[in-house]
Amino acid sequence: MKLAVDSQSKHAHIHGVDFSGTPQQLADQLSAYLAKSAVERDIAGGTPYEQRQAVRDSGLLKLLIPEAYGGLGGSWPEIYAIIRQIARVDSSIAQVFAFQFLMLTSIRLYASEAQWQHYYRLTASHNLWWGNALNPLDNRTIARKVAGGYQFTGQKSFCSGSMDSDYMIVSAIEESTGKFLVAAVPTDRSGIRLNGDWDNMGQRQTDSGSAEFDRLLVNDNELLLDPGPLSSLFASLRSLVAQLIFTNIYIGLAEGALQDGVKYSTSNSRVWSGSLAQTIHEDPFTLLHYGEFWSGLHASAILADHAAGLLDKAWLQDLALDEKARGELALAVFSAKVQATRSGLDVTSRIFEVAGARATTAKLRMDRYWRNLRVYTLHDPVDYKLRDLGDWALNGKYPTPSFYA
Amino acid sequence: MKLAVDSQSKHAHIHGVDFSGTPQQLADQLSAYLAKSAVERDIAGGTPYEQRQAVRDSGLLKLLIPEAYGGLGGSWPEIYAIIRQIARVDSSIAQVFAFQFLMLTSIRLYASEAQWQHYYRLTASHNLWWGNALNPLDNRTIARKVAGGYQFTGQKSFCSGSMDSDYMIVSAIEESTGKFLVAAVPTDRSGIRLNGDWDNMGQRQTDSGSAEFDRLLVNDNELLLDPGPLSSLFASLRSLVAQLIFTNIYIGLAEGALQDGVKYSTSNSRVWSGSLAQTIHEDPFTLLHYGEFWSGLHASAILADHAAGLLDKAWLQDLALDEKARGELALAVFSAKVQATRSGLDVTSRIFEVAGARATTAKLRMDRYWRNLRVYTLHDPVDYKLRDLGDWALNGKYPTPSFYA
Amino acid sequence: MKLAVDSQSKHAHIHGVDFSGTPQQLADQLSAYLAKSAVERDIAGGTPYEQRQAVRDSGLLKLLIPEAYGGLGGSWPEIYAIIRQIARVDSSIAQVFAFQFLMLTSIRLYASEAQWQHYYRLTASHNLWWGNALNPLDNRTIARKVAGGYQFTGQKSFCSGSMDSDYMIVSAIEESTGKFLVAAVPTDRSGIRLNGDWDNMGQRQTDSGSAEFDRLLVNDNELLLDPGPLSSLFASLRSLVAQLIFTNIYIGLAEGALQDGVKYSTSNSRVWSGSLAQTIHEDPFTLLHYGEFWSGLHASAILADHAAGLLDKAWLQDLALDEKARGELALAVFSAKVQATRSGLDVTSRIFEVAGARATTAKLRMDRYWRNLRVYTLHDPVDYKLRDLGDWALNGKYPTPSFYA
Amino acid sequence: MKLAVDSQSKHAHIHGVDFSGTPQQLADQLSAYLAKSAVERDIAGGTPYEQRQAVRDSGLLKLLIPEAYGGLGGSWPEIYAIIRQIARVDSSIAQVFAFQFLMLTSIRLYASEAQWQHYYRLTASHNLWWGNALNPLDNRTIARKVAGGYQFTGQKSFCSGSMDSDYMIVSAIEESTGKFLVAAVPTDRSGIRLNGDWDNMGQRQTDSGSAEFDRLLVNDNELLLDPGPLSSLFASLRSLVAQLIFTNIYIGLAEGALQDGVKYSTSNSRVWSGSLAQTIHEDPFTLLHYGEFWSGLHASAILADHAAGLLDKAWLQDLALDEKARGELALAVFSAKVQATRSGLDVTSRIFEVAGARATTAKLRMDRYWRNLRVYTLHDPVDYKLRDLGDWALNGKYPTPSFYA
Repeated sequence: MKLAVDSQSKHAHIHGVDFSGTPQQLADQLSAYLAKSAVERDIAGGTPYEQRQAVRDSGLLKLLIPEAYGGLGGSWPEIYAIIRQIARVDSSIAQVFAFQFLMLTSIRLYASEAQWQHYYRLTASHNLWWGNALNPLDNRTIARKVAGGYQFTGQKSFCSGSMDSDYMIVSAIEESTGKFLVAAVPTDRSGIRLNGDWDNMGQRQTDSGSAEFDRLLVNDNELLLDPGPLSSLFASLRSLVAQLIFTNIYIGLAEGALQDGVKYSTSNSRVWSGSLAQTIHEDPFTLLHYGEFWSGLHASAILADHAAGLLDKAWLQDLALDEKARGELALAVFSAKVQATRSGLDVTSRIFEVAGARATTAKLRMDRYWRNLRVYTLHDPVDYKLRDLGDWALNGKYPTPSFYA
Repeated sequence: MKLAVDSQSKHAHIHGVDFSGTPQQLADQLSAYLAKSAVERDIAGGTPYEQRQAVRDSGLLKLLIPEAYGGLGGSWPEIYAIIRQIARVDSSIAQVFAFQFLMLTSIRLYASEAQWQHYYRLTASHNLWWGNALNPLDNRTIARKVAGGYQFTGQKSFCSGSMDSDYMIVSAIEESTGKFLVAAVPTDRSGIRLNGDWDNMGQRQTDSGSAEFDRLLVNDNELLLDPGPLSSLFASLRSLVAQLIFTNIYIGLAEGALQDGVKYSTSNSRVWSGSLAQTIHEDPFTLLHYGEFWSGLHASAILADHAAGLLDKAWLQDLALDEKARGELALAVFSAKVQATRSGLDVTSRIFEVAGARATTAKLRMDRYWRNLRVYTLHDPVDYKLRDLGDWALNGKYPTPSFYA
Repeated sequence: MKLAVDSQSKHAHIHGVDFSGTPQQLADQLSAYLAKSAVERDIAGGTPYEQRQAVRDSGLLKLLIPEAYGGLGGSWPEIYAIIRQIARVDSSIAQVFAFQFLMLTSIRLYASEAQWQHYYRLTASHNLWWGNALNPLDNRTIARKVAGGYQFTGQKSFCSGSMDSDYMIVSAIEESTGKFLVAAVPTDRSGIRLNGDWDNMGQRQTDSGSAEFDRLLVNDNELLLDPGPLSSLFASLRSLVAQLIFTNIYIGLAEGALQDGVKYSTSNSRVWSGSLAQTIHEDPFTLLHYGEFWSGLHASAILADHAAGLLDKAWLQDLALDEKARGELALAVFSAKVQATRSGLDVTSRIFEVAGARATTAKLRMDRYWRNLRVYTLHDPVDYKLRDLGDWALNGKYPTPSFYA
Repeated sequence: MKLAVDSQSKHAHIHGVDFSGTPQQLADQLSAYLAKSAVERDIAGGTPYEQRQAVRDSGLLKLLIPEAYGGLGGSWPEIYAIIRQIARVDSSIAQVFAFQFLMLTSIRLYASEAQWQHYYRLTASHNLWWGNALNPLDNRTIARKVAGGYQFTGQKSFCSGSMDSDYMIVSAIEESTGKFLVAAVPTDRSGIRLNGDWDNMGQRQTDSGSAEFDRLLVNDNELLLDPGPLSSLFASLRSLVAQLIFTNIYIGLAEGALQDGVKYSTSNSRVWSGSLAQTIHEDPFTLLHYGEFWSGLHASAILADHAAGLLDKAWLQDLALDEKARGELALAVFSAKVQATRSGLDVTSRIFEVAGARATTAKLRMDRYWRNLRVYTLHDPVDYKLRDLGDWALNGKYPTPSFYA
């Protein structure tokens, strides 16, 4: 894997970080920088232009792209480890950063070889950041055939990371056939309006607001039709890439909460009257709770790493990917997601029981861990992941590939 | 029980509610009024003067005081039911409202007969609202003997409901003996500074900030020394009154979250793809979760009601209260608190799994239920309530009376 | 309530207990006697003739029957308290004892006034014990109309308490109409064969085996047709009486496990290396676990008592019982059952974690608590109780009366 | 890895299995054979001579021993996978089989190079099976110095697998110094009495009964003194080998319960009245439960596999093993044990909720899974594993090496 080259910068180096080194070192530098302002940006919400510029300048947006196309050639385990690391300090930016790889995955899996090579090279050479306007549950955007392509018109909700993006993946329903179309378009193209209307209790800087398309022209060669979504088991990997992104962000942010808990426990180490210990460092109940927290997150991390290893193998199999390998990967991803959801919600809510009442002061915004996780774990219901695992256990059926499974 | 008389009003009737009827009707009117602004006041934090005036004007501040002294003569079950009802819509005001009864309890249990009759009558006739500056874990306020009384000097944290109060219960450590002193003083007396510095992730309008005392003169007849705190099993009821206040607020606010969940479930009744049901009203997983939520809160409520009944009996026993009755009451209160803490945290965190992702929009502030409960359940560690119950189960020992047990 | 009279005894007083006193005293005497042989009878399984005779001789079989008809006139709270007490030492006999009241309830609710008064008097005067062959899910027994009544032919599973019974409640499907018929018949009538084939991992002395009917003659005046099952809200109380029987047996047997746990903890009080305590009596983890166990069972008991109180009121309302009262009772019963199921399974499985490894020796049969509870909690799925509670919480619908709700 | 050679057989080939093939194939053959009689042997308890002979004849007792010393050269991941596989059908035999490797580990870690090479070769060439009489908590056996060695005298409890063993690992307390001595002796040596008195609610064929030593002569060259227990981080691996044995047996037996659950669910696929599904194969609650079970066990297995991989690396490091590697391994093992304990207890207890009430019939002995797991998970308290994990999370301390950590 080669080192990051200087990225081209739309704006000045306003963040003041000089990125250099291996991807891991770049991630360390980026995390340290993001951590400094995470609390105030949780209050502010909105689009963190300065921090987004730092992400661009880190060069990590090219992590997935093979070196042959100008990227850093990171493996899935490397990519997920870096996503998780960033989520420890800032789960909003972790999400829009990770969506870069989900968008590139959509291109890789849905587009023709010529297309994905083009977009891979374009992304690497121009250091593009991709935003998301592919929402399979929102059918309000309609595609009408015009000469040389389509006009997309209508609304779209939950367009994470589209604000301040360079390119977007957009979906629409073809007017005459009802077919689900996916396309890649530059964000500044006429006909796209991003409403910047995301105001939520968590993941406040993900810009997951709404977009409106007004006769947005999409050229034929921008459509990711050949082979297209769900065209093969390989193409169906997109949903598993996405589910494992969620999972790693859940884990990372809960690890962040745990780190903060340790910090406040340590700074206020008085035990409750009646404890047999002198300080909370030996306090039985405190240690029991920390043991629960740590073992829950450790299990999540090991499961996520296991799934990332399987994904790496599946990715390399390309169209040769078979049902068993795809199925085993799906089971591994779902198991990791279930565990991460539960242990994460437990840690982010109960960490206050060991961090102490003073950790609830508004200025720490320590509730943001729970708020962020709570919001993001609602992406799709964990009940259905359990149901799918039950279908395997009872009936021996692998999860049916879909946009969520 | 007699009906509420018009309360004297420091300010104009700025809230516009004409309170009248039975205590239950007054509570209905007050709750309806508080509900209207609960969301915006969670954003604002600070002291809700207008709403506090409504509480005063409702006449419910006299609920505990027997009719013979000018009050409404409510029983403990009635008082807790009204606290719980208010907590459904506003757990901050429920807390400072409930502390009125905890402060009056302190007077009733710690003061001489002449003193408590005096303060009961004064409170009823002037419709006084009592704030809290009794914090047994904060020893920074020192009492120095002077002619005719003491001078209190030092700081005090977590003074819930002291802002805009009429009188306060204040504690200090006697300089020479280390004795724990409790006194009743008018809030506007010279030497009291309330810092108004409460800014927390939850219970944002409880004004649980800090106070500073600078040679605050406390007269001998304002000291609640005879018989004083923990002087008898009866006097030790204060902590159980307090713990049952917490419990009922936990239950009420979680019931509020459940109500809101139902509202948003109903307004967005689409089931997830793959459900065997047509709407969420028949959806198996949705019903299972609602069943969990409801049964958890129902159990909490029945346990709290059971404890309130025992408290009513214990209260009437006065100094004849024996170890068994005090002990059984403590076990009942602790059990209710454990159940309310757990079911409440579960409901306020997981309600989003049935209310749907759109219920996370910032404008609903639906996260406030979890934030409020999370903060307030940290008052004292639930682990020690379980430990005390275990001491009963294994060793047959009742909880040792203290400021927390 | 009058005291028990000497019951007529089919056999000699082989058990050697001289029963006398109030129902509570009779229950104390019976429990003490049953406790002595509970372990060896769990090994043996089969029909405990000697102990069944003791139940008969205690006079408690008449507990539900009003004094006017020769019974002891116990209220539902009294009946359930005694069922729970017996379950603490012997959940098998508790079940067949409790079914006496379920069978009498069937008569009271399904039969005409003349019929139930007859059977009440007959039961009281002859000290009859009723067995169960009413199984609404088993449709294999068919009723064919003959002159003056019906012939019942076919099989029936799960006939708890029929072995050694005096009378039985039997159900069948009417051949021509498919109607569900219920009848009262003497156990020794020709055409009844009880197979005595119950051999299960738990509840081993409940004789819940199969029966076969071969042209069993049922006279018209033995049919409980007028008003019959589910004929009114009042008649539908049978299932709630049954569900609350289960619940109280779950609670009692788990309380028995807890008592045994305390006994073995105390007899082997060594703490694990690394504990901050000298003995398990102060050991934090041990106390935490006991606190969990006790609070779970306490909550179950309070909920069950609350439901028993509501049942008593509903019972007295007779045909005036309305939907709200029936519905609130059902919610209370289901909540108690959910809590008892969960806390009971937790206690009976985890009690070993505090009782210590030596409590697993076969001779103690301490696993019988879990085995008994595990088996009996499968009577009908607890999931559907939660679903029904969810239906109330979300949709405001009371549980639909049925044989299980 | 070489294939198994015919083992020498003390008895005739009474089991009738012709073992051949790779270790995995041998394990398949052994499991299939053991499965046939598992139910009846759970009833019988005692020593399963015939099945023990099959274990010997399988050749798998040599699995850990490197090929250079005549063994099969299995890695730790291979060994644990086979232990887990056998536990699926017979957790008693899995335990005594696995203890072979724990005893050989004791020799490898505590003995001098000459000693362990001797015992490795002896074990491989004579196909020896080692029993356990090393119990660090039982100090009743005393070692008295005599010429050329020691005399061991006293009692010892929990001597799993000693009945019918060829050699044993025995511990004693040196009379004068209190030092903990460990030795290897042939089981048939004069002075050893195995009482065969194991009669427990679970793990019924592990022969974990008591032994008595009466002036048992232990020669100096049979003492595992150099370097001895806990002499180095490497030597301290024994407890982690043991803890990971427990973990894998917990997982295997719970997987066995899950398999049985699927079998009985499938054979009785009727759904409960009110389900939206036609069969339990699509029933939402059934699938949800199976999903819970499967994901819990899958997480356990992945964690155990991860730990086995770390152990393999640590094992190869020999005396170069450092604190970090030992510490990370300990954390991995403890996490796996916590997860396996909890998910296993959940599955083995709740499996009946999906397998159906008929799965409780005594003839299936399906309760044995819970009984076996319940007993074996009491080996040492899981609370202390959590506490140790908490010590890492809060204080950054690795578990202190001991006989349990």
